[in-house]
Amino acid sequence: MEKIVINQYKRPRLTSPVLVGGLPGIGNIGKIAAEYLVEKLKMEKFADVFSQYLPPQVFIDDAGVVRLVRNTIYYKKIAGKSDLLILVGDFQGTTQEGQYEMSYHILELARKLNVSMIYTLGGYSTGKIVDTPRVLGAVTSENLLKSLQDSGVVFPKGEPGGGIVGSAGVMLGLGKELFDLPGACLMGETSGYFADPKGAKEVVRILVSLLGLKVDLSDLEERSRQIEQITEKMQEDVQGKTQQKEDLGYFG
Amino acid sequence: MEKIVINQYKRPRLTSPVLVGGLPGIGNIGKIAAEYLVEKLKMEKFADVFSQYLPPQVFIDDAGVVRLVRNTIYYKKIAGKSDLLILVGDFQGTTQEGQYEMSYHILELARKLNVSMIYTLGGYSTGKIVDTPRVLGAVTSENLLKSLQDSGVVFPKGEPGGGIVGSAGVMLGLGKELFDLPGACLMGETSGYFADPKGAKEVVRILVSLLGLKVDLSDLEERSRQIEQITEKMQEDVQGKTQQKEDLGYFG
Amino acid sequence: MEKIVINQYKRPRLTSPVLVGGLPGIGNIGKIAAEYLVEKLKMEKFADVFSQYLPPQVFIDDAGVVRLVRNTIYYKKIAGKSDLLILVGDFQGTTQEGQYEMSYHILELARKLNVSMIYTLGGYSTGKIVDTPRVLGAVTSENLLKSLQDSGVVFPKGEPGGGIVGSAGVMLGLGKELFDLPGACLMGETSGYFADPKGAKEVVRILVSLLGLKVDLSDLEERSRQIEQITEKMQEDVQGKTQQKEDLGYFG
Amino acid sequence: MEKIVINQYKRPRLTSPVLVGGLPGIGNIGKIAAEYLVEKLKMEKFADVFSQYLPPQVFIDDAGVVRLVRNTIYYKKIAGKSDLLILVGDFQGTTQEGQYEMSYHILELARKLNVSMIYTLGGYSTGKIVDTPRVLGAVTSENLLKSLQDSGVVFPKGEPGGGIVGSAGVMLGLGKELFDLPGACLMGETSGYFADPKGAKEVVRILVSLLGLKVDLSDLEERSRQIEQITEKMQEDVQGKTQQKEDLGYFG
Repeated sequence: MEKIVINQYKRPRLTSPVLVGGLPGIGNIGKIAAEYLVEKLKMEKFADVFSQYLPPQVFIDDAGVVRLVRNTIYYKKIAGKSDLLILVGDFQGTTQEGQYEMSYHILELARKLNVSMIYTLGGYSTGKIVDTPRVLGAVTSENLLKSLQDSGVVFPKGEPGGGIVGSAGVMLGLGKELFDLPGACLMGETSGYFADPKGAKEVVRILVSLLGLKVDLSDLEERSRQIEQITEKMQEDVQGKTQQKEDLGYFG
Repeated sequence: MEKIVINQYKRPRLTSPVLVGGLPGIGNIGKIAAEYLVEKLKMEKFADVFSQYLPPQVFIDDAGVVRLVRNTIYYKKIAGKSDLLILVGDFQGTTQEGQYEMSYHILELARKLNVSMIYTLGGYSTGKIVDTPRVLGAVTSENLLKSLQDSGVVFPKGEPGGGIVGSAGVMLGLGKELFDLPGACLMGETSGYFADPKGAKEVVRILVSLLGLKVDLSDLEERSRQIEQITEKMQEDVQGKTQQKEDLGYFG
Repeated sequence: MEKIVINQYKRPRLTSPVLVGGLPGIGNIGKIAAEYLVEKLKMEKFADVFSQYLPPQVFIDDAGVVRLVRNTIYYKKIAGKSDLLILVGDFQGTTQEGQYEMSYHILELARKLNVSMIYTLGGYSTGKIVDTPRVLGAVTSENLLKSLQDSGVVFPKGEPGGGIVGSAGVMLGLGKELFDLPGACLMGETSGYFADPKGAKEVVRILVSLLGLKVDLSDLEERSRQIEQITEKMQEDVQGKTQQKEDLGYFG
Repeated sequence: MEKIVINQYKRPRLTSPVLVGGLPGIGNIGKIAAEYLVEKLKMEKFADVFSQYLPPQVFIDDAGVVRLVRNTIYYKKIAGKSDLLILVGDFQGTTQEGQYEMSYHILELARKLNVSMIYTLGGYSTGKIVDTPRVLGAVTSENLLKSLQDSGVVFPKGEPGGGIVGSAGVMLGLGKELFDLPGACLMGETSGYFADPKGAKEVVRILVSLLGLKVDLSDLEERSRQIEQITEKMQEDVQGKTQQKEDLGYFG
C-alpha cells in the first residue's frame, strides 16, 4: 500500500486558504484548540489521511462500529477572508520517517490547494501549573513577526530551548525549505501534566484574532475552570496533608 | 525481494467467499478458532504468505525438515452457501508497517477473489479467569449489527476500551476505508494468561452459526475441560496452601 | 544507494557449485568453520557484499587502512566434483528486513550461478561445556536426510526447539520456498559462551566428508585443545576455590 | 518525499576539490574543527542537506525564526590549490540506513564535483583528560600514509580498536569501495566527556598543513585554555575536597 493514503471527499473552490495543524502533543494543546475550532466553526470534512506511520489500530464507537486511526482535514469557506483548512488527528506519525512523510504529504496537498499560510498549534511545557499561560511563537521568516506580536504572541529569546520537535515544527521547516510556504507556530504554555484546555484557549483566542474570525470561547473557558478547580482541590489536599503533618509534628 | 510474497497453489472458482482471519494474539483465540475450522472442515491450502515482516526464522518438524515461518490461506467450496477462505499463521506482522502491509495484501487478494465479507477472530482480555466467556463484536457498519446480535455477539459500550490493535482491527479498518469491504470482529473473552480453547470455542460456535455451517465442537470442549481442570487444580493448590497457612497461623 | 551492493570480482565458469554459508552466530561456529575452509582450500575472492543492513562501520588493519564491514564470497573450482562457493562475513544483517534481504540477494546470485545445493553452518547452544559435540542437522526435504545421517549428522526430534533463527535458517527457508533450492543446515553443539573451534571442527569434518573433499583439521584441533585447557583451568580454579572455602569452613 | 533532499544554491567551477566532513560525534571534535575552518576561511554556502534520517525538529534562532535541522556544505575556491568543500551539520543520520544513505548521497555529489580526496574529522575517546592530544589516522590505501605521517598523524597498531563507527568511517568505506575515492580520517584525542576544542585544534592544525593552507588557530587555542582552566579548577576542587577530608580524618 501507499505509505500514506489521502481520501479526499470534497472538491470545494478555496481562496488562498490558511492551513491550521493541531495534532496530539504537549498538553494536547494543539489538538484541543484545533478540534474546538472545527466544532465551533461547523467545518466540513475535506479528507482523511490513513497511514502505516500511524498505529495499527481501530477505535470502536458506542454503536460498535470500528474507526481506523487517522488524521482528518476539515474546511470552511469564509466570505471575504482566506478560507480555512484545519488538520486534526488521533496520532502524529510514530517514527522519524513518519513525521517527515506525513508533514510532506500534507504540504503537497497544501500547495495544490494554494494554501497561503500555515499555522501549527502546540504546547510549551513549563513543568509547573501556569496561571496565565502565554502563547509563544516561532515563524518561518522575520516579516511574520510583527503581526503575531501585535496579536499578543511572545518570542522570548532561547525559548523553547530545544526548538520544536514533531509535526508542529516539521511542517514549518519543510514548508519553508521545500515548499516556500510561510508559516508560524503558536505554542500555549502548559504544565504538560494533563490535557490542558486553558493553554488551548489562549492559542485559539490569538489564532482567531490573526484570522479575523469570531469564535465563542466560553466552552473552553468552562473546561479551563473545571481543570482549575480540580488542580486547586489537589493542591489544597496536598497542603492540607502537609499542614496536618505540621500540626501533628510534636507527636512525630 | 518483495516485502510480501504470496505463493498461490490453487485457482478454484469461488462464489462470493467469506474470509476469516485468525492469527496469533490475545489468548491465541483467533488462531485456535481458525485452525480448528481448517481442520474440522478439511479445508485445502490456497496460498502461503511469506514476508520480511515475519521473524527471520524456520521451524523444524519431527522429520528434521525446515518450514519457513508464514501465514497460510485455506479454502473450501460450500454447496449453496458462500465459499470459505481462512487465514491462519505463525505470527502477525512484527512492525507497524508490517501490520498495515500484510493486512493490505490479504485485502487485495480478497478483492480479487470477490470476497463478500470478512470476519476477524481475536481475544478480549479480562485479566481474570472467565467462567462463561462472551463473544464481543465490532463491525464496519451498523447494518451488520443485527445479524451478529441475533447470533449472540454482544456489543458492550466502551469495550474494548482501546479499540482493537493488530491484524484483527487493521483488516477491518483498511477493508472499510480503502476496499469498501464489510467486516466484523469476533472477540472471545479470555483471561489472556494462556492459549485459551474455551474462548475460542465460543467464537467458533458463533462463527459457524453466522456462516450457516455445522461443525462438531467436541474437541474444543474437551480441550476447554482439560484447561479448566488444570486451572481449578491450580486454584485449589493455592487455596489449600492459604488454608494450611491459616491452620498453622498460631505457629507463625 | 542500493540496500545491498554486490561487487563481483571474478567470472569463473563454475560447475553446479555448492554454496556454503558461515556467518557469525552462536559460538561463532559457522564463521570459524567457513573461514577455516576458505583458508585451508586457498579459495579465491569471488565477490564482496556491502549493505546498509550491516553496521555503519569500518575496521582498521595494522597498517592503518580502513575496511568497510562486509560479507564476502570465495570460490574454488574442484576437479571432478561440484565447485565450491563459501560465504563468510563480519556480521549478519542487523534487522529482520536485513536478514531476509541479504539471504535473498545471496540466493539470487546462487541461482544465477546454478548452485545445486546450499549448506548453512551454525551452532546449537547447549548452555554447558560439551565434551564431544554432535552435529545436528535440518534439511529442506526428506530425501536429503540419508546422506547427512550417513555422514554422522543427527536429527534429534524437537531440537532445536525454536527452529533456526537468522541467516542459517532464512537461507534454507527462502531457498526452498522461493528458489526451489535444496539445502541443509549443520549445527555444531557448543556451550555458546565463547567462539568455539571444537564445535566448528566437527562441522568442518562432516561438511568436507559430504563434499568429498580432504581438509587437514589439525589447526582446528590445536585451537580446540587450547580452549579446552583454558576452560579446564578455569574449572579447576573454581573447584580449587570451592575446596579452599570448604577447608577454611571452620574459620567462617 | 525523497529520503534525502540536497538544495544546491551555488554552481561554482571547482578544481579537483578536497571534501572535508566534520559532523557531530565524539568530543564533537569533527564538528568544532570543520565549523572553525568554515568561519576562518569565510567559506560560502554551497548546499543544504535535509533528510528524514535527521530528527524531526526545528531550532529557533534569537529572532524567533525556525531552522529545519540539516547538514550543510560550504565551499571556497583557493588559488593555485585544490578548492575546498566542507560538510558540517546538526546531526549525523540517526539510523544505520541513514548513516549509509547520507554518506552515499554526499559521495555522489562529491563524484559529480570531481572531488579528489576526502578527509573526515572525528574524535578518539581516551576516557581521561589528555594533556597533548595526538591526531590518529586511518586511510583508504597505504600510499596515503606517508603524507599524513609527515604531517604528524600517528597510526598506532590496534587503535581505534573497534574501527570507526558512523559518518567519519562510512564515508571513507563507501568512498573506497563504491566510488574509488581516496580518503583519510583524522581523529583528535579527547576525553570524550565534553565538546573539546583542544583535540579539535590539533586536527585543524594538521588538516591545514595537509591542505597547504594558513589558518589562525588562536581562537581555538583560547577556547582550549578556557576548557583547561575549567577542568583544572574542577580537579583542584576534587583534590581540595579529598585533602580536606584527609585533614579532617581524625574527626571522621
